[in-house]
Amino acid sequence: MKIKIGILGYGNLGRGVECAIKQNPDMELVAVFTRRDPATVSILTKSAIVCHVSDIADWKDKIDVMILCGGSASDLPVQTPEMASMFHVVDSFDTHARIPEHFDNVNNAAKKSGKIGIISVGWDPGMFSLNRLYASAVLPNGQDYTFWGKGVSQGHSDAIRRIEGVKDAKQYTIPIESALEAVRSGSNPELTARDKHLRECFVVLEEGADAAKIEEEIKTMPNYFADYDTTVHFISEEELKRDHSGIPHGGFVIRSGKTGWNNEHTHIVQYSLKLDSNPEFTSSVIIAYARAAYRLAQEGQSGCKTVFDIAPAYLSPLSNEELRAQML
Amino acid sequence: MKIKIGILGYGNLGRGVECAIKQNPDMELVAVFTRRDPATVSILTKSAIVCHVSDIADWKDKIDVMILCGGSASDLPVQTPEMASMFHVVDSFDTHARIPEHFDNVNNAAKKSGKIGIISVGWDPGMFSLNRLYASAVLPNGQDYTFWGKGVSQGHSDAIRRIEGVKDAKQYTIPIESALEAVRSGSNPELTARDKHLRECFVVLEEGADAAKIEEEIKTMPNYFADYDTTVHFISEEELKRDHSGIPHGGFVIRSGKTGWNNEHTHIVQYSLKLDSNPEFTSSVIIAYARAAYRLAQEGQSGCKTVFDIAPAYLSPLSNEELRAQML
Repeated sequence: MKIKIGILGYGNLGRGVECAIKQNPDMELVAVFTRRDPATVSILTKSAIVCHVSDIADWKDKIDVMILCGGSASDLPVQTPEMASMFHVVDSFDTHARIPEHFDNVNNAAKKSGKIGIISVGWDPGMFSLNRLYASAVLPNGQDYTFWGKGVSQGHSDAIRRIEGVKDAKQYTIPIESALEAVRSGSNPELTARDKHLRECFVVLEEGADAAKIEEEIKTMPNYFADYDTTVHFISEEELKRDHSGIPHGGFVIRSGKTGWNNEHTHIVQYSLKLDSNPEFTSSVIIAYARAAYRLAQEGQSGCKTVFDIAPAYLSPLSNEELRAQML
Repeated sequence: MKIKIGILGYGNLGRGVECAIKQNPDMELVAVFTRRDPATVSILTKSAIVCHVSDIADWKDKIDVMILCGGSASDLPVQTPEMASMFHVVDSFDTHARIPEHFDNVNNAAKKSGKIGIISVGWDPGMFSLNRLYASAVLPNGQDYTFWGKGVSQGHSDAIRRIEGVKDAKQYTIPIESALEAVRSGSNPELTARDKHLRECFVVLEEGADAAKIEEEIKTMPNYFADYDTTVHFISEEELKRDHSGIPHGGFVIRSGKTGWNNEHTHIVQYSLKLDSNPEFTSSVIIAYARAAYRLAQEGQSGCKTVFDIAPAYLSPLSNEELRAQML
């Protein structure tokens, strides 16, 4: 009996989930749900079907875990509680500031329906959060630092694209090596936004656009760029396509802490990711937690969970005996 | 109400646990139990007392969690099941091959007594094991690599000390940078023991000992050195004391894996530790899991657990609400 998975929303993340399921023999993709006309959506998995989202309630008893692949801004705040009234669900809600509110909404829906909802699964929030928690619990007298990149920030790329005269753009967030080194030295430096990350932009202009004016507009954009050292490169559409079509990302969670009766010893705990494909890695984390959702449900649990609430063994296809013998 | 901790065995690890308790305001050290004459054991915590291990049963209702700080070779296989009949316990049993057997023994004792026993807590087994599990669950199509060091191997240092003519010795395990780089490149190399680690030995000779013969004996010692490139330095007792009295350690768990419909994307997940004091870091992990043991016990759970079985939130002094708001 395989774990039957549904996907709601078939963009980069939905396709990533589909690929991740293929690597996990205890799971199968049953159906993809879309707001588009299903006839126009072609998926990779031959054995699965594409349905319109309006038919999703018909699948209540045919899907074990529904993976929600919409965006955090407007899709998930509505979809996750709604779907948790019918399905065990996993989402990757990543608006950090609104997690407590989202948790409560999903928890209320899932408690009422007796379903499991796991929210904010991915790498940040997700694997990075786990590493912040573990390291801070082990080294309470310390400080942690999160660096992102080198990688593509969708939000910053979009912000540039909204500028008049910009045809297309890609923005890379780049951690500053000297800041990483200072943190790794155990000196617990105070670091501003500008100290930690550079922003590098590759911009394709509309014909006749004023490059100098656009560069100035990018560099002074509040919240997005004004607090950072930003470089802007103007390139052709062909170059953008050729050199910047990937979606790499990654980053570092580093905690340095002291132990000893007089805090005489320093320890550095570092977790890092180097990802060729941000959405595919996020999807891979989601699928491991889909397994956990299924197992928690089998135990009769319900309500909203995060990565903090789930024992690691639930993620692995191996039995507890195998895990102890092979991985401990 | 603080969590009342007892320590059984007051060597490097026991002292490390004592220091870790000082950093966690929700815990207090109540008593240290020793096989030595308690009058000869002086501890750092003014408010705690030293007792002989033969009196430990009198403390059944006065200690919430007993930390077992004996060795894995002969102490813990006996002590952990025995103590689990009276106390919630945490140990750092690290003989990987015997973990399944140790688990069963502790589980039987703890199930009978209704206590919690958490075994094999530290960094390997422990934090490294967690990272092997998480990374392999997320990237099933991949391979993981564990490197140790640079750090002092107690077992290898002891092996040198047993050679006739050796007065004292310290052995460092050193990961080979080119092997680390090959793994980080995502090429999934096949690596022998010799490819992964160097062994560097600092040896103090007895007067009149034959250096050449001892060097040969070290380098050809089966299991310990024969399968590695080993360098031997003969130094004075003063130099050993001055330059090699610390107990640093650390290492790397790296998993590289592929995702995508045709495995076209590579991801590198890396966890590393750089520790000034191996026993103090191990103790710090143990104390976080002592908090988990206490909370699991309050929920009425019993039996043997490992780091795989415990949701991360149990380790932190923060509430679930605080964790979601601050760390997710």
